[in-house]
Amino acid sequence: MTEVRTLAPTPEQWSFAFGGREPLLTVAPGTVVEVTTEDCFGGLVRGHDDLPSQVCTFPYLNPVSGPIAVEGAEVGDTLAVHFVEIVPSRDWAVSTTFPHFGALTTTHATAMLHPALEERVWVYDVDVAAGTCRFTARRSDFSVELPLDPMHGTVGVAPAAGEVLMSITPAAHGGNMDTPELRAGVTAYFPVNVPGGMLSIGDGHARQGEGEVCGTAVEAAMQTVVVVDLVKGSAPGSPRLESDDFLMTTGSTRPLEDAYRMSQLDLVGWTGSLLGLDELDALQLVSQAGLAPVGNVVDTNYTMVGKLPKHLLGPALAYDGTHDRLRAVGADYLRRR
Amino acid sequence: MTEVRTLAPTPEQWSFAFGGREPLLTVAPGTVVEVTTEDCFGGLVRGHDDLPSQVCTFPYLNPVSGPIAVEGAEVGDTLAVHFVEIVPSRDWAVSTTFPHFGALTTTHATAMLHPALEERVWVYDVDVAAGTCRFTARRSDFSVELPLDPMHGTVGVAPAAGEVLMSITPAAHGGNMDTPELRAGVTAYFPVNVPGGMLSIGDGHARQGEGEVCGTAVEAAMQTVVVVDLVKGSAPGSPRLESDDFLMTTGSTRPLEDAYRMSQLDLVGWTGSLLGLDELDALQLVSQAGLAPVGNVVDTNYTMVGKLPKHLLGPALAYDGTHDRLRAVGADYLRRR
Amino acid sequence: MTEVRTLAPTPEQWSFAFGGREPLLTVAPGTVVEVTTEDCFGGLVRGHDDLPSQVCTFPYLNPVSGPIAVEGAEVGDTLAVHFVEIVPSRDWAVSTTFPHFGALTTTHATAMLHPALEERVWVYDVDVAAGTCRFTARRSDFSVELPLDPMHGTVGVAPAAGEVLMSITPAAHGGNMDTPELRAGVTAYFPVNVPGGMLSIGDGHARQGEGEVCGTAVEAAMQTVVVVDLVKGSAPGSPRLESDDFLMTTGSTRPLEDAYRMSQLDLVGWTGSLLGLDELDALQLVSQAGLAPVGNVVDTNYTMVGKLPKHLLGPALAYDGTHDRLRAVGADYLRRR
Amino acid sequence: MTEVRTLAPTPEQWSFAFGGREPLLTVAPGTVVEVTTEDCFGGLVRGHDDLPSQVCTFPYLNPVSGPIAVEGAEVGDTLAVHFVEIVPSRDWAVSTTFPHFGALTTTHATAMLHPALEERVWVYDVDVAAGTCRFTARRSDFSVELPLDPMHGTVGVAPAAGEVLMSITPAAHGGNMDTPELRAGVTAYFPVNVPGGMLSIGDGHARQGEGEVCGTAVEAAMQTVVVVDLVKGSAPGSPRLESDDFLMTTGSTRPLEDAYRMSQLDLVGWTGSLLGLDELDALQLVSQAGLAPVGNVVDTNYTMVGKLPKHLLGPALAYDGTHDRLRAVGADYLRRR
Repeated sequence: MTEVRTLAPTPEQWSFAFGGREPLLTVAPGTVVEVTTEDCFGGLVRGHDDLPSQVCTFPYLNPVSGPIAVEGAEVGDTLAVHFVEIVPSRDWAVSTTFPHFGALTTTHATAMLHPALEERVWVYDVDVAAGTCRFTARRSDFSVELPLDPMHGTVGVAPAAGEVLMSITPAAHGGNMDTPELRAGVTAYFPVNVPGGMLSIGDGHARQGEGEVCGTAVEAAMQTVVVVDLVKGSAPGSPRLESDDFLMTTGSTRPLEDAYRMSQLDLVGWTGSLLGLDELDALQLVSQAGLAPVGNVVDTNYTMVGKLPKHLLGPALAYDGTHDRLRAVGADYLRRR
Repeated sequence: MTEVRTLAPTPEQWSFAFGGREPLLTVAPGTVVEVTTEDCFGGLVRGHDDLPSQVCTFPYLNPVSGPIAVEGAEVGDTLAVHFVEIVPSRDWAVSTTFPHFGALTTTHATAMLHPALEERVWVYDVDVAAGTCRFTARRSDFSVELPLDPMHGTVGVAPAAGEVLMSITPAAHGGNMDTPELRAGVTAYFPVNVPGGMLSIGDGHARQGEGEVCGTAVEAAMQTVVVVDLVKGSAPGSPRLESDDFLMTTGSTRPLEDAYRMSQLDLVGWTGSLLGLDELDALQLVSQAGLAPVGNVVDTNYTMVGKLPKHLLGPALAYDGTHDRLRAVGADYLRRR
Repeated sequence: MTEVRTLAPTPEQWSFAFGGREPLLTVAPGTVVEVTTEDCFGGLVRGHDDLPSQVCTFPYLNPVSGPIAVEGAEVGDTLAVHFVEIVPSRDWAVSTTFPHFGALTTTHATAMLHPALEERVWVYDVDVAAGTCRFTARRSDFSVELPLDPMHGTVGVAPAAGEVLMSITPAAHGGNMDTPELRAGVTAYFPVNVPGGMLSIGDGHARQGEGEVCGTAVEAAMQTVVVVDLVKGSAPGSPRLESDDFLMTTGSTRPLEDAYRMSQLDLVGWTGSLLGLDELDALQLVSQAGLAPVGNVVDTNYTMVGKLPKHLLGPALAYDGTHDRLRAVGADYLRRR
Repeated sequence: MTEVRTLAPTPEQWSFAFGGREPLLTVAPGTVVEVTTEDCFGGLVRGHDDLPSQVCTFPYLNPVSGPIAVEGAEVGDTLAVHFVEIVPSRDWAVSTTFPHFGALTTTHATAMLHPALEERVWVYDVDVAAGTCRFTARRSDFSVELPLDPMHGTVGVAPAAGEVLMSITPAAHGGNMDTPELRAGVTAYFPVNVPGGMLSIGDGHARQGEGEVCGTAVEAAMQTVVVVDLVKGSAPGSPRLESDDFLMTTGSTRPLEDAYRMSQLDLVGWTGSLLGLDELDALQLVSQAGLAPVGNVVDTNYTMVGKLPKHLLGPALAYDGTHDRLRAVGADYLRRR
C-alpha cells in the first residue's frame, strides 16, 4: 500500500531558491505527500494596506516547500510528480500590482523612464465548497465571481551545473512557470540534475489568467497532495506535463517566441517518438493539432506551453503509462482518506 | 429584408495586398455577402510533387477576395464583419513546409547559416459532412482524422497612411493574423482607414494549430458567407473579435511579447470601458480571467489574441450589440437559403 | 563629364512613403544630384512651444525628396548612391520627445499602461563652419557643444511586391534606418525592386547617437549632394553601405537580435564571397574582426549594422570598385563647383 | 605603497560559477593582484582535432579565477576593479564553433529543427610583441593578421539573493558579458551583493568582434594585473565601466532591445546625476552623443553597452575620481615592476 508522508514546513524552513538546499523530506518513488504551501507573499499581504513592497523583504519572496529528495533518483532520470489535489487553505486570497513587475509596466529588463504603476492590493473571497473566488473592484462597485481553478505557479527541482536560482525564475529545472495548466489531475515530469532530484512546490494560485499580465495571480496558501515518482532515464530538456487529455511541453526563456520555439520543438520531438513519425511529419501534425497557451509573460523568463490532444496518440503511452498509474494511486489515496 | 451579394473573383481579380485597390464590390451596411476564396497557394499545390517554391511565384501568394467597399464608411469608423459560414469547397486541402518560413527554421528575419528544411507537401482528405480532415504521414503509415474547424487566416481592410501591405503581413489593419479564433460565428471589428474601409478575405484553413508552427495550416479554398456592417466611430487600434462567449483582441508585431502586450492592453481597455472599471481594476480582472492563445509565430509579424469570457460582463454589450444583431441576420440568411 | 541635376521639391511634392510614386527626377547612371531635404517634422518644429504632436499631422511626417528614377534600372539590379556632401541648411536644428515613441517609453508595440512621457523640444544651434551643434538643457543651465556629424536617417527605394511603406519604416528597401553610418563619404547599395529603382532621401540629422534612444536625432534640413549609379544584377537582400574603411551591412526587423542576425549573416556572406572563404571560415573572421553598431531601437523596425574593416580584404573590391569610382566622381564635382 | 598579491589557481581551484564559493584570496581595497586565467576551454582545445564538445565536459566550461574577497565590502557597496594589463600567456589561441551555440545557429533557446552547424577549430598565432594574432582559414589558403586587443569576457561578483550562476551567464552581477570594452585601461564597477563582493575573472580573449557572432572569441589564457578597490555605497544595478575617454553601462538580458534599454536607461541616469540634468535633458544628451556597441548576442543573456564620451562631463568625476586614482596605482605598479 502507498505510503503517505507530510511536508508542512515552518517559515524558518521555507526555501526561496531551487538548488543548494538539503532535503526536508526523503521519500521512496510512489509516495503520496501532503504538502502545505504558503502564498508568494509569505502570507504577509492580507489586506488593502499591506503593500507587498512594504511588507515583504527581497529576496524572501515566493517561498517553496521542499526540497523533497526521491530515493534512487540519479542524474539523467525523470522525476514525476502527480498533483492529486490542490485546495486553498484559507477563505481569502490576494492579488496585487507590484512596482516594476508585470507585462504592461516598465520593469528591470524592459527598462523605461516611467515611474512605477500604482501598487494596489485586491482581496478575493474564496469559497472552496462553491468552487468560486470573488473579484471586487477597488475603485468602483463592480464585483464578480470567478471559478476556482487551483494550481501551483512554482514547481521544480534543483538546477543542473550546481546552479542556485531564485524561486521566481522559471527555466529548464521548472521553477516559477506560472502556467494554469499545472492543476490537479496533471503529472509533471522534470529532469533529475542532482541526486534525489530535490522537488519543491509553492506559489499556489486560486486561479490565474494566461500570461499573469498584472504580475500576480489570485495568490493562495494551499493544501496539496502529490504522488512523487521516478522514471529511470529519459530526462526531458524542459519540464513536461500530462493530463488525462493532453501532452504538454514547456519552454521558459526570452523573448516569448523563443519560449514558443522551445515548447513546440519538444512537442514535435515527443509526438514523433510516441507515434514513430519522422521529424517533419511530427511537425506537420503538431502544426495542425497543437495548442500554445501562454504561461507567464512577467517573470525573469517567460513561459509558453505546447499542447497536443492525447486522443491523437492511439495506444501510445508517454513514459510507459506513468500518468495513469499515478492517477490511480491518487484516486486510491482519496478513496481511503 | 437583407440583401445578399456574391463575390467570386476570377484569378485575374485576386488581390495580393491590402490597400491601393479599387473595390470589386460595394455594399450597404448589413449586406450578406457570399464570398469565394482560393487557398494561400492560389490552388496550385495539389499533390506531393507540387512544391510551393516551384509552382508559386512570389509575390503572387496568399490571394484575397476583395476589396469590398462599405457605403458610408469613413475614416475613424468601425467595419464589422460577421462570419456566418466558412465551408471548404473541395474534398482536399494541403499543407506544406516552405523554405525559410516557419517558427522552427531559419527565416529571412531569424537569419542563420543553416540550409532550409526540406520542402514537403501533405494532402488532407476533407469530409465536410463528417466534419473531419485526415492527416496522413509522408514517411510512415500513420494517419489520423482531425476535426474540421474552418477559419480564415487573412481578413482585413486597407491600412492607414496610404500604405499597401502584402497580404501575408498581419498588422493594425488585420491581414494575415492566422488565428484559429477567426471561425464561423465570430464578428470581427476593423478600423476604417480609408473611405469604404475596403474589406478583403482569404487564406481559408480547414483547421490550424495555435502558432501555425510549420508555417502553413490545412490550406483550403472556401465558400464563405459574411454579413458586412458598419459602426460609426469607435475605430479600434487593432482588430477585435467577438464570439457568443468571448471578447477578443489582437496584437500583431514582434517580438511575441509585444504582440501579447498589445492584445492585453486593448483587452484591459475594452473591459474597463464596458464595465466602468478603473484601469488597474480592469487589469486585475483580465489578469485572472483572461486567456492568451497564440495566433501565428511565423508571419512577418506575430499575432497574439487576448480573450475574456463575456459572462463576466453582465448586461454590458460591445458595440451596442452588433454581434448579436449580425448573428441574427446570419441565422435568418441560413434559414431562408 | 558628369551631369549635375537638382532635386528641390516643394512641400506639395514631398513624399511620405516609399513605393507607389511617380519619379520627380529621372537620371542616367553616374549623375550627380543636388538634393534639398526638409527635416522629419516638415520644418514645423522651430521652437520650444512647437510640440510635434500639435504642429504635425499624421501621416505627414518624415518627408522624403524623391523618388529619383535611374535609367536602365531593372528588378534585380543594384542601385548605388554615394553621399558626396551632407550640409545642414539652417543654423538651427531640433530634437524632441514624442508621445509613445522612443526606446525608453511605452509605445504602440511595447504597449503599457503608463501615460506618455512629457513631450519636450530642444533647439540646437548649428555652426557648419565650426563643425558643431550646441545642446542646451531645458531644465538647468547646462550647455555643451557636440561635433556635427551630418547624416540621412531615411534613404531607400521602392519596396518589392508592390508594397507602399510609410517613410518612417526601415526594411529591406532601406527607408528609415536611422544609422549614423550613413554619412558623407559613404556609398549605399539598394536592391532594385521596380523599374527605375525609385530612390528617395530625407530625414537629415546634424548628428545622432547610436539607437536614437529618445526617438529623434538632431533633426535638420539638409543640402545634400549624391552620385546616383547602377550596378547590373547583384541586388542585396538588405541595404549595404561602404566607406573608405568599412564594408557595412544592415538588418531592419524586430526583435533587435534578429536585426543583428540579418546584418551579420549578410556580412558573413559578403566577406566570404569577396575573399573566397567557405561559410564557416567567413563566419570566424567576422566573429573576431566585425563590429555591430546599433542604428535605431525606436522605429517600426529596429536597425543593426554589421561592419568589417576593408583592410582585411586585401585587393578584393566590392561591386568592382563602385565606391572608389563614385568617390572620384564626387571629388571631381566638389573641385569644379 | 601598494600591496601586490598573486592569484594563480590550480585547475582544482578553478570556479565555474559566480556565487557560493569561498574566497581564494582576500585583499584590502587598493591592492594590486596579478591574476592568471585559463581560456574558456580550460586549455583543452589546442589543435584542429580538439573539438570542444569532445574534449570539454559540461558544466566544466569557462573557468574563472577567484573569488577574491575585498575587506570591508558590504552589501550595497561598489567593487571597483581596474585592469592594468591583460597579456596572452601563450603564443597561440583558439576559436571554435560549438554545437547549438552562436547567433547564427539554432540553440537551446532559439530552438529549431536544424541539425547543428559543423564544429570546427581555428588556431591563431599570437605575437604579443608585434601586437597581432593571425587568422588562418581552414578550407582555403587565406590568412590575415588581426590586431591584438586583449580583454576578459567574464568578470563579476557573487550574485544577489544567494544565487549561484554558471560562469557563462551574464547578468546584474557581471559574469560572461563578453564585451570587447573590458580591456586594459578600464575600470569596472560591480554591485556588492554579499560580504566581500567575491570578484572572479576569466575567459580572456586575444580579441573579439562585437556580438561574438560564432559563439567564441580568440580564446586565450591570460596573465592579467588588476587593482581591486572599494567604493562605499552606490552599488550600480548592473556593471558599469569607465575608460579614460568613456563612461559605459551594461545591460544583460533578452531580447536584445531590453539589454539596450537597460544599458541606456542606466547611462541616462548616470549622466543626469553627474551633470545635474533633469531626466529628459539627460535622455536628450545621451540620445545625440551616446554609443551602443553590442557585447554578445550568443550567451544565455545578451549584453549591450552604452557609452558616453567623458569630455562632455566637464569637471564632473564618476565615483569621485576612482578611475583616475586606480589608473595611477596601476601606472605606479608597472613602473616599479
